[in-house]
Amino acid sequence: MLAEQIDHVRDLIEQKNWTAIRETITNMPEPEIAELLFDVETNDRMLLFRLLPRDLSSEVFALLETDQQNKLLTELTQEETRHLLSKLSPDDRAQILDELPGAVTQRLLNLLSPEDLRETRQILGYPPESVGRLMTPYYVAVRPEWTVGQALDHVRKKGRDSETIDVLYVVDQHWKLLDALDLRRFILADPQTKVADIMDSQYIYLNANQDREEAVRTMERYDLSVLPVVDSQNVLIGIVTFDDVLDVAQAEATEDFHKGAAVSPLKGSYRDARLPELYRKRIGWLLALVFANVFSGAAIANFEDTIAANVALVFFLPLLIDSSGNAGSQAATLMVRALAMDEVKMSDWWRLLTKEIFVSAALGFTMALAVSLIGVLRAGIEIALVVALTMALVVIVGSVIGTALPFILKRLNFDPAAASAPLITSLSDISGVLIYFSLATLLLSQVQ
Amino acid sequence: MLAEQIDHVRDLIEQKNWTAIRETITNMPEPEIAELLFDVETNDRMLLFRLLPRDLSSEVFALLETDQQNKLLTELTQEETRHLLSKLSPDDRAQILDELPGAVTQRLLNLLSPEDLRETRQILGYPPESVGRLMTPYYVAVRPEWTVGQALDHVRKKGRDSETIDVLYVVDQHWKLLDALDLRRFILADPQTKVADIMDSQYIYLNANQDREEAVRTMERYDLSVLPVVDSQNVLIGIVTFDDVLDVAQAEATEDFHKGAAVSPLKGSYRDARLPELYRKRIGWLLALVFANVFSGAAIANFEDTIAANVALVFFLPLLIDSSGNAGSQAATLMVRALAMDEVKMSDWWRLLTKEIFVSAALGFTMALAVSLIGVLRAGIEIALVVALTMALVVIVGSVIGTALPFILKRLNFDPAAASAPLITSLSDISGVLIYFSLATLLLSQVQ
Repeated sequence: MLAEQIDHVRDLIEQKNWTAIRETITNMPEPEIAELLFDVETNDRMLLFRLLPRDLSSEVFALLETDQQNKLLTELTQEETRHLLSKLSPDDRAQILDELPGAVTQRLLNLLSPEDLRETRQILGYPPESVGRLMTPYYVAVRPEWTVGQALDHVRKKGRDSETIDVLYVVDQHWKLLDALDLRRFILADPQTKVADIMDSQYIYLNANQDREEAVRTMERYDLSVLPVVDSQNVLIGIVTFDDVLDVAQAEATEDFHKGAAVSPLKGSYRDARLPELYRKRIGWLLALVFANVFSGAAIANFEDTIAANVALVFFLPLLIDSSGNAGSQAATLMVRALAMDEVKMSDWWRLLTKEIFVSAALGFTMALAVSLIGVLRAGIEIALVVALTMALVVIVGSVIGTALPFILKRLNFDPAAASAPLITSLSDISGVLIYFSLATLLLSQVQ
Repeated sequence: MLAEQIDHVRDLIEQKNWTAIRETITNMPEPEIAELLFDVETNDRMLLFRLLPRDLSSEVFALLETDQQNKLLTELTQEETRHLLSKLSPDDRAQILDELPGAVTQRLLNLLSPEDLRETRQILGYPPESVGRLMTPYYVAVRPEWTVGQALDHVRKKGRDSETIDVLYVVDQHWKLLDALDLRRFILADPQTKVADIMDSQYIYLNANQDREEAVRTMERYDLSVLPVVDSQNVLIGIVTFDDVLDVAQAEATEDFHKGAAVSPLKGSYRDARLPELYRKRIGWLLALVFANVFSGAAIANFEDTIAANVALVFFLPLLIDSSGNAGSQAATLMVRALAMDEVKMSDWWRLLTKEIFVSAALGFTMALAVSLIGVLRAGIEIALVVALTMALVVIVGSVIGTALPFILKRLNFDPAAASAPLITSLSDISGVLIYFSLATLLLSQVQ
C-alpha cells in the first residue's frame, strides 16, 4: 500500500499537481507521511513538508529519526522552525532537543517562546531515563465540588489540547491530586451529580523522579493506558501515556539484549549507528575479556607437561569450555530476564540456585554421555573418561556461575544484565581449564 | 505499602472481622488483591476470595498465574466456578482455558453457557499467537446515519460492558467496519451532527489471523491504545487493547532473549518452571552444539604435530576462540534485535555487512595489539605474532558470521533469533581453530 502511495505521489509531483498532493498526503496517517518524506528525492522532501498543514507537520516531524530531523531543520527558515517547535508537544520537544547535537539544541532553545522554554527546561530538568522525561502537561483536571455536567463542559473546552481525555484528574485548589477517573464514569453518571460523589480516591500514580522502567511496570501491572505524574508534594505535574511507555519497554529490552552480548547501549538505532560509535560500544568488553583470559592461559601453562604427553586432550578443549559457557549463558539469560521482569526477587536466590544445580546436573550427565561416545572413538577410553567427567562438572560449574552472577551484580547495585554471555564464557573458561587439566593430570598419570 | 496491608488483613482475619476485611480488600486495586491472595495462609485464601464481590473476583482471578488459578479452581464449587467463568472477559477466558491442563479445560468448557462457549470457541479457533487470541468482542459500535447525540446515548447504554469506550467503531448494516473514531470527537461535536459528518474514514485495523507481533508493531507505529480486528470480509469481530499488547511485547522480547542463549521458549514464567521443563528446553541446543564441536575437534586433530612441537600455542586457544565468539555474538545480537524491531530490512544486508567488516577490522586490530603484548611475555615473539595475526582474523570472521547468520536464517524462513550466542560461538570455533593452527603450521615451521 505504501509503495503504491509513493508512486502515486511521485506522479503527482511530476505533474506539479500541488492541490492533489496536498490532499493525498494530508489524508495519510502521520507515520506513513514520515516514511514517505524520506522515500522521495531530497528536492521534493521540503516541498512535501511545506505542503502539510502546520499542526500535521509538527506531528510528522516528531515521528522522524534524529538524523532526519536534523536534516530537515537545516532546510527550514528560522520562522518555520519557530512555528514547528511551538506546535510540538512538550515531551516530544524535550526529547528532540535532548537528542540533537548540542549546537543545534542551543539554536532551537533560542527560538522558543518563554512559556515553551519553561516547559521544556522543566522536562529536561528531570534525570535522563526518568518518568519526568516522558510526561506531557496536557491533561484535563477537574474539581471535586463541580458537577459532572460542569466537568464535561470543561472537557469540551480543554479537551482539544489534551493528549488524552480518557482519564480526568481530580485536583484540589493547590493542584494536589485527589483522584483519577475514567471519562466513561462521567459519561455514564447523571450530569447533576457532584464529581466528589463519583470519586473513589483509588488511583495509581508515578513520581517524576522515578526510573522510566517503573512506568512500564506500573502500566503493565494495573493495565492502565495513562498514568498521572506527581512531584514530591503530590502536586499533579503531568501525565504519561501508553505510547511512550510501549516505546520505553522496547528500548529497555533492546538495551538488555545488547548488554547480554556485552555491547554498551547504543544511542540511536543500530541501522543508523556510525562506525566509531559501534567500535566504542563493543571494544570495551572485548578488551576486558582478553585480559580476563590471561588467567585461563596462565592456568593452561601450568599443565604444559600433561598436554605435551597427551596432545589429544587439546581436541576436546573448545568443546568443553564452550559447553560450560553455553550452559552458563542459558542460566544467566533466564535469570537476567526474570529479574528484569520482576518475576524473581532477590530472596529467591537460594531456591533458584538449588533448582539450577539439579537441572545442570541432569544436563551435565546427558552431555557427558554424548561426549564419551565421541571421546572413545577419537582418543581412547582413558581420555574419554576424563572428558566425560570434565563435561559433567563444567556444565554444573558454568550453570552455577550463570545463575549466581546476576544476583551478585544486583546485590552490588550493578545492572544484572551485565552478566553477559561473553563474561560468563570467560569465567567458565578459567574454571573449565582448571578442572579439565587437573582431572587429566590426576587420572592419566595413574593409567599410563 | 502492600506488606502493611497484608499484616492489616491478617489481623482482621485473626479477629474474624468479616465486614472490615471485605471493605479493605474490595478497596484495593485488583493486582494487589491477587498478590494478597497468595501471600496469606491457604485456609484464609478461599475465605478472602469468597468475600469478594462477584465482578471483582473474576477480575482478580484473571490476574493470577496459571498455577494459582488451577489451585483456586480445585477449591471452588461447581456453581462458583460457573459464575466465575461467566464473568470473565472472553479473551481472558480463552487464555485461561488454553493454559490450564487439558482435563481441567474440558471440565470448565462444560460449565459455560452456550453463548460463552460459542465466544470462547471462536477465540480458541484462531491460531496460537494470533491477533484473534487477544481480542475481546466487548466494544461499542455506532451507525453512520445516527446523530452524535444518539451515539452518545448508545454509549451510555452499552458502555458499562465494553472493555473501553475511548474509541467508537462505525459499522454498516452488515457490521462491516467503516471508521474508528475517538470518543473525544463525539464529546466535542454538536449532538445534532450526523456521525457520518464527523467520520474521516481513516482507520488502522488488524486482521484476526495476523501474528500477534503485528499488533505490537501497529500500536507502536500509530500510537493507538486500541485497535479494531476484522475478518477477511472486513467485518468487525473484536478489539485489541494496549494492555494485552504490552504483555505480548514483553513476552516476545523474553522469547527472543531465551532464544539468544539457545533456550527454547518456556511456557510460563522462569520462576515457576519445573525441573523437567527447564531440562528439556535447554538440552536440545546444548547437545546439538556438542556434535557441531566434533568438527573443531577434528580440525585440531589434523594439527597434532604442530601442537606437540609448540605446546604454548594451547595457552592462547581459549582466548582466541572466545574473542571470535564474543565479537560474533555482539554482531548477531545487534542484528537480531534490529530485525525484530523492524529497524533493518532484508535489503540492508549488504550495507550492514560492509559496515561490519570495517568495524570488526578495527576491533580485531585493537585486540591483536592487546594480545601481542601478552603473547610476547608468555611465549616469545614468534608465537605472539601468530596469535596477534589470528586474533585480527578470527574477530573479523566471527563478526561476519554473526552479521550474516540472522539474515540467512530469516531468508530461509527461520526465526533470526535462533542465531544464538552459543551457535555463533560454535561456528566461530571451527573457523578459529583452522585459522590459528594453519597460521601456526605455516609461520612457525619457517621460523624453527
